[in-house]
This record gives sequence, C-alpha cells and structure tokens, in this order.
Amino acid sequence: MGERIRCPALKDRVMTADQAALLIESGMTVAVSGFTPSGNPKAVPLALAEQVRSGRRRVRVNLLSGASTGPEIDNTWAELDMIARRVPYITSTALRRAVNGASPEGVAYLDQHLGMTAQNARYGFYGPIDVAVVEAVAITEAGDIIPSTAVGCTQTYVALAKKVIVEINTVQPEGLEGFHDIYLPADPPDRQPIPLTAVDQRIGRPYIACGPDKIAAVVWCDMAVKPRPLAAPDETSQRIADNIVSFLEAERAAGRLSAGQVPLQSGVGSVANAVLVGLENAGFRHLAFYSEVIQDGVIKLMDAGCCDMASATSLSMSREGMTHFVQNLEDYRGRIILRDSEISNGAEIIRRLGVIAMNTAVEADIYGNVNSSQMNGTSIYNGIGGSGDYARNSSVSIFMTASTAKGGTISSIVPMATHVDHTEHDVDVLVTEQGYADLRGRSPKERAALIIENCAHPAYRPQLRRYFERACAATHGAQTPQLLEEAFSFHLRYKNTGSMLEPAEE
Amino acid sequence: MGERIRCPALKDRVMTADQAALLIESGMTVAVSGFTPSGNPKAVPLALAEQVRSGRRRVRVNLLSGASTGPEIDNTWAELDMIARRVPYITSTALRRAVNGASPEGVAYLDQHLGMTAQNARYGFYGPIDVAVVEAVAITEAGDIIPSTAVGCTQTYVALAKKVIVEINTVQPEGLEGFHDIYLPADPPDRQPIPLTAVDQRIGRPYIACGPDKIAAVVWCDMAVKPRPLAAPDETSQRIADNIVSFLEAERAAGRLSAGQVPLQSGVGSVANAVLVGLENAGFRHLAFYSEVIQDGVIKLMDAGCCDMASATSLSMSREGMTHFVQNLEDYRGRIILRDSEISNGAEIIRRLGVIAMNTAVEADIYGNVNSSQMNGTSIYNGIGGSGDYARNSSVSIFMTASTAKGGTISSIVPMATHVDHTEHDVDVLVTEQGYADLRGRSPKERAALIIENCAHPAYRPQLRRYFERACAATHGAQTPQLLEEAFSFHLRYKNTGSMLEPAEE
Repeated sequence: MGERIRCPALKDRVMTADQAALLIESGMTVAVSGFTPSGNPKAVPLALAEQVRSGRRRVRVNLLSGASTGPEIDNTWAELDMIARRVPYITSTALRRAVNGASPEGVAYLDQHLGMTAQNARYGFYGPIDVAVVEAVAITEAGDIIPSTAVGCTQTYVALAKKVIVEINTVQPEGLEGFHDIYLPADPPDRQPIPLTAVDQRIGRPYIACGPDKIAAVVWCDMAVKPRPLAAPDETSQRIADNIVSFLEAERAAGRLSAGQVPLQSGVGSVANAVLVGLENAGFRHLAFYSEVIQDGVIKLMDAGCCDMASATSLSMSREGMTHFVQNLEDYRGRIILRDSEISNGAEIIRRLGVIAMNTAVEADIYGNVNSSQMNGTSIYNGIGGSGDYARNSSVSIFMTASTAKGGTISSIVPMATHVDHTEHDVDVLVTEQGYADLRGRSPKERAALIIENCAHPAYRPQLRRYFERACAATHGAQTPQLLEEAFSFHLRYKNTGSMLEPAEE
Repeated sequence: MGERIRCPALKDRVMTADQAALLIESGMTVAVSGFTPSGNPKAVPLALAEQVRSGRRRVRVNLLSGASTGPEIDNTWAELDMIARRVPYITSTALRRAVNGASPEGVAYLDQHLGMTAQNARYGFYGPIDVAVVEAVAITEAGDIIPSTAVGCTQTYVALAKKVIVEINTVQPEGLEGFHDIYLPADPPDRQPIPLTAVDQRIGRPYIACGPDKIAAVVWCDMAVKPRPLAAPDETSQRIADNIVSFLEAERAAGRLSAGQVPLQSGVGSVANAVLVGLENAGFRHLAFYSEVIQDGVIKLMDAGCCDMASATSLSMSREGMTHFVQNLEDYRGRIILRDSEISNGAEIIRRLGVIAMNTAVEADIYGNVNSSQMNGTSIYNGIGGSGDYARNSSVSIFMTASTAKGGTISSIVPMATHVDHTEHDVDVLVTEQGYADLRGRSPKERAALIIENCAHPAYRPQLRRYFERACAATHGAQTPQLLEEAFSFHLRYKNTGSMLEPAEE
C-alpha cells in the first residue's frame, strides 16, 4: 500500500484517524471532498464523531462540501448536533430534520447553486476555511492529491484551507488516477475563457494541486462507499420517462435534435435511469452526457454502445454498478471524465455545449414556476442542487414530476408554487406521467392551459381549470392571473382535510 | 445623404415608409432593431400604424425586439391592437394595459431574459421570422448594416429573417460607425468560447452582416429618438444610492473590490444615476461598466475622468445627454462599445468579468426572494429584462428598492413575494433607503432578521417581526418559516383597507 503515498516527506505525517480528527477544533470551518455520497472522507469524520459521542470533546463546526455527503458526515454529525452552518446541499434525513428545526442550537443551511459554491468560497462569502479533509486514492511525489470518485469543490477548498488532511482510501482503486480533469479558473479580473468545447476534452490536470507543506495529516482508510440504493422505476416513473423520450423524439423529428449533437444532463434517481433505457430503445445513438453525476444508467448505455462519452463531477452508482465499473475500469478510461463542479455545472460550458437539462420538480404551478426544494414553502427537502445551473443555461430545460403524491392526495400542479427555485423564465418543458407541456415561446396564460390539460392529474384538472378561469375573470385577463386569497388553497385544504382534492359536489 | 447607402444595388430599393410597410402582412412575425427606446425603426412602424388607423388595412403581428421599443412601435401598435404576441420586454403603458387584459383579442407576452432572446430565436422557440425592420446610420458597400444607438438582437434577427427593411435615420450621426462590435456565436455543437476578456476588447465586426439580396426596402427616416426623461433623484433615491455606495466602500475596505478591478452593471433610472454620482464622490476612479444600457451618468463619469470604459448594448440617454454625446462623439470613440445583447447580457462574460450587478426590485420578501415584474403576482409592470442575466452571473448581485411605495401604504418588504423573478439563491445584497442587508453566506432565517432590521421601513418592522416570530414558532424553526394562510396578508390588507399597515392596536 505504501506506493499510494509517493511523496517521501509525507510518510511521517501518517497518523490514525483519531489523531487527525484532533486537528479539527470547535468553531472551525471544515471543507470536505466529495459530491453526493461519493468521494467524501470517512475515517476522520467518523473518528471525530466518536470523540464527540464518547463525551471526550465537544465540537461544532461550519461544514462545506461539493454537494451532499455520505452518511459518515452529514448524518452522523447531524445526529450529534456537530454542524453549526452547512453549505451548499444536503440529502441526509438527520441533517434535514436538524435544519428544519430539530437541532437544539439550530443549523444555518445555505442552499446554493452547486456550480457557484467554489467561486463563492473563493470570493469569501463563507469566510476562511480552516481545514480541508480530502479522500484520495494516492498522493503524488510532489504532494498533490489524486481524488477518488468525485471532484466537487475540492481543488478550491484545498487551495483556500490553512491545512489539509488526506484520507487515502484503499478500497477505491488506484486506477482512478487519470479519470479526473482538474481546472481552477483564475478569479476576475484575470479569468480567461474556460477552453472546454467538447464533452471528451481535457483542459486541466489529473490531480488536485496541493504540495506537501499544507498536508498536516495522512490517514489510511479502508471503508467502502455506502451508495444510495437504486430502485427500479415504478409505473409512474416509467411513464414520465416515456414522455420525456417522446418529447426528445419530437425534437429529433423537428430537426432540433440530432442524436449525439448536444449532450444531456440527467438527474439522479430511478426516473433518470428509466429515461436512459428509453433513449436506447428509441434508437438514440452516440449520446453524450454533460452532467453532475454519472449513475448506473449511463454506464449501461456505454456498454450497449449508445453512449460515447460522459463528463460529470461525481460517480454515484449503486453497489453493483460500482463493482462493474471498477472491474472494467480500463474500458471507461478516456470516456468518463470527472471535473470540478464549477466546470460540470458551469454556466459558460452548459450554454456553450447546448446541454439538454432534465431535473426534478417538487411542485410546479400552472404558470410554469417550479419549486424543487421546499415543502409548503417552509421545510426544505434537499435543496436546489445543480438544477438551476443547468435549467438556466441549457438549450432546453425540462422539469419532471409525478402529477400527484401521497396516494393522489397531493397535486404536484398547483395554482401557485409555495417556493420558487426556477422561475417561469427558466422552465421550457414540464413533464409528468400524464404527458408533457412544451412551454417554449408561450405566455403565462397559454402555459396554464397546456400544463393543466397535459400535465395535471385528471382528478385535479377540473379544480385547476376553475381556479384559472375565476382568476382570469377576477383579474380581467392580466398577465398572470392569481387570486391571492386562494393561491395556496390547495395546500391549505391538504392541511385541513388530508387531501388537496375539492369535495365532489363543488 | 446619398453616401449613407454605399451599396449600389440598393439604391433602387429606396421607397417610402408607406410602401415598405406594405411588406408587413397580418399574421407575420416581425423583428425590430433596438433596445429600450433606442435604435428602433420609426418611419415604417408609424406608416404601418397609419395604414391601420385609417382603416386601409387590418394588421396584427407577432413582435420581437431586443428589449422594449420607443413609443413609435409598442405604444402606437398597442393602441391599435396590432400586436398578437410580444417577446421579450415592454415598458409602454398602452402595451402594458393590453397585456394585462385591455386588448380585446389579447396579447400573448413572453417575458424573457434579454440575454437569451437571440439564442432562443435561433433555437426556433418563437417560430420563423418573416420581416426584420432595422434602423441604421448607413449601409456598407457590401450591403451590410451599420446600426444606430443600439444593437440588441438585430444581428440574429437579420440572419433569421426572410426579408429585411432598413430605415436609414439621418438624425443619427454617421459617426456612430465604429462604436459597434457585432459577434454572432455559432450554435451548439459548434459554439466556441466567446473570446471577450476585457470591457474594452473588440471581438466582432463593426456592422451587422446582411448582404444586399435580403434587403427588400430602404427607407429614409429623419425622426429623432423620443428619449425617456431622466428625473433628478428624490431624497429616497438618493439615500438608496448612498447605501449602495456605502456597501461598495465596505467591499473596497475589505479588499474585495479594488476600484477599476471589476466592472459594474448599472440599471436604468434616477437611482442608478445617483449611484454613479456617489461613486465619483466616494473617490472611485478607473471605473468600468459592463451593462446593457449606458445612461447619462456613465458619460458624466467619463467626462469627470472617473470611468475609463463602458460596454453595453444600447445608448439610452436623455435628450441633453444624447446631444452632448453626439457633439463630442470622437471623445468617446474606443471608450464606448455597443455589443449584441447576447454578449452584453451573456452569462459567460458576466461571470468571467465578475461584474457587480445593481438591479431594481418591485418587492422582496424577508427571505431574499425578489419580484421584479408583477404586481400582486398578477399584473405585469415591465418584465424581468436583463436583471436575471446579471443577478445570476455577477460576482455580487445587488437589488434595490424604496422600502415603501404609494405614500407608505405599501411595504416593499413582505412576508412572501407574490411573484419570484430572482430566487433566494441569486440575491446577495438588498438595499433600501433604510440601509443594506448583506445576505451572502446567510441562511433564510438569518436573512429575515437582516432584511427586517436593515431594509424594511420602521413602520413595518413590528408587523414583519411578528410574522417571522409566529412563523418560526408555528413551523418549529423550519428552513424558511412561512404561514401559508397569512403569507399574502400584507397584500390583502392593502386591497381591503388601502394600506398594508396593521392597525395600531394590534
């Protein structure tokens, strides 16, 4: 294993996770590697948690990462109330509860565009970074860091941190070296055009520049990733996927989409994977992905010969998917590139490549505003993630959701979204299992008709139509007819009766 | 005057405005040059309106432009119900009324990010363009067009249009030739990095490529621009400006802003002009502007030696300002560059240059969501314009508003914005005449405290505090505490009582 630490000066900085965790003090701002449950450090965060759990220390820190983290950090630390501030994204149940009020001392969570986190950190929005904790597969002779399965903001965090703790994860294959393309843009006024013009192009270095001086500790880790399980799509998810594929087929038929011409951004989860299968079945070939996360489906498309290239900031696969990937690592070399999230989610590149974006909505209103983060405008679920980076800058911005939730008692199509993450200006196509609404070039009132008739569940169409008609009448056909007295009547009815559905006699 | 038409083949295509207007048929999609009341054609639109007004023809068209237009088009055509669809921005009172329901046949208005309009047109979102009508100061020997005081989307519209009508405006100085830098990016998958890295850099051509074949008519026009009057800032505007300058001074003191290091985007109106005066007084030198519109204040800063360079897509000055500019044209050559709105408002460039953005809010909520377009979420005022292009991609995104409107009966700070154009993720600093709230790195609940105490009018602070405290209690301190039953209580109180202010006994 010694060859993973190739820098001689660092061999005497190897210590236990428990020793390294003592470098993290309460009140510090700690930045960790990783993006989604992929590529984050494990041994040191768990050792720190154990120091707190055992009562040996009391530690509460500000935590920065690339996106969410694996359970070793967000979940474990939240359960011990170790997180005072959190940027930029969460998926942990325990942390979500803490953010929404369960933490006795409160967690200040700043939900931020993932493509802007590194830049904002460099601009000083989150204050100085005391320690960066980074998962690596190796350290080079020059003391630079070969990351594992995610890049995220690690290069920026390492550059800003006063000291760096490197966890070398021996379960992660050393062969990941060469899959990364690390590019740290200069900040204004010295920033230059990011020279990336194709998904398969390399513009940076295969390592995170660091140097031995900043590395305060090297820790061995042999813990495997705890991946999120990937559910098979249910019937609703499958229909959503089918409708997205139908839209893409219509685009192809209209000459607006040649297969392989522009890359796709594909979200996370079973619907996204079902879309990928649908694309294969619909005869799309030479696909490319420019996305934040590579999931199992992309690998399967590559294996099937339908996908040539994929670029992302994270490999976030099921256990089976990851095993297959590692066993066939060389097949994917040069076809999968892991970039900084500032590049994978960068406005400049997404717009240049003309990425087609597919993201998930929590609810959408009849005028095309999308809530992707907050239940009743109040309780955060995960956060905006990278959806805004892609939606705003894509050539076509698609949002998808099941038309109902909780057994049909909640309509995902409502008169007014209770929180807006993606405005009417950024939503081109809305898709549910009922169909799709192509909103491009449409005014708000035209959108309302399309969304109600094509996307809402039939059970909710009558009451949505009534709302829209009454709002049009009351506002004399204004640009975006709303009745402020009733804009949230669906949500309040659910709160009071357990269903958004109006009684039948109405 | 003959030297303004330098292409011999076009001399026999000169006709009257009335003759040229006959080329525009009902049902067509018409795209016009210009951006704000600057650079739009006048003679042909007025001739077409006269044909309609006199009952000679009935014409209703879809209208595209760079932003709003002068009164010759939006106002005149709206009064005659000649506009069926409108993209991407309006400021005309008559058209606003029509869009909000006064038009018997309705106007479908698509309010769109101005930086994306040209791209969306090329992507086909607005359908084919039948005729482009372009104001010019000259036509080159090769049949290319020298625009007047604005660029907007004209290059894209000319490239897409089946035929082009050129209005040569003899009131506009021929010396404007050379002030424009026209750059038409290729579309994906062939788009390359836009090579602009400095405000004063030229990357394109001084003319709009067209060629003689497409030009169906050339019309002489001697009508002056009808500029918007520029009011002197009132006391409230002056205080807002002072607070913005205070923020920028604090940034400079914190080492985050060296004068001249990053350019400013400055909105339209008296507050924006007051900010410019304030910057001069605060000792800022070597300023640069990367903006969509150049107003009088920028010219004055240049004259005072405080501003080196300004880039925009439109010169939109007062009559006095324009006269001064024209009389001293050569002083500004090379220091003012007019670009396509796709470049002036382009995500890639704004982010690269680190532009500091200053835009106006209609209302903001206590969590930092900004409404910049719709009264009561229903009636559109102007539209989002370029504010989203800058707010999302700037290094610091500032929004400003007076804390109250209509004699204090409306609070611009409300529990929940009735329409969201700029989400909490895109608003860094909120400024009113009361002070500023620096929201960078802050969670929603932290923002609420800052916005209420620093930005809300003192008369409204108690009721905003009560709402926030009760929402926190009712939601057990969730991420973004809202009471859906009362989220619009301020707006409904205004509707019912004529004031958002709660009765004193409460």
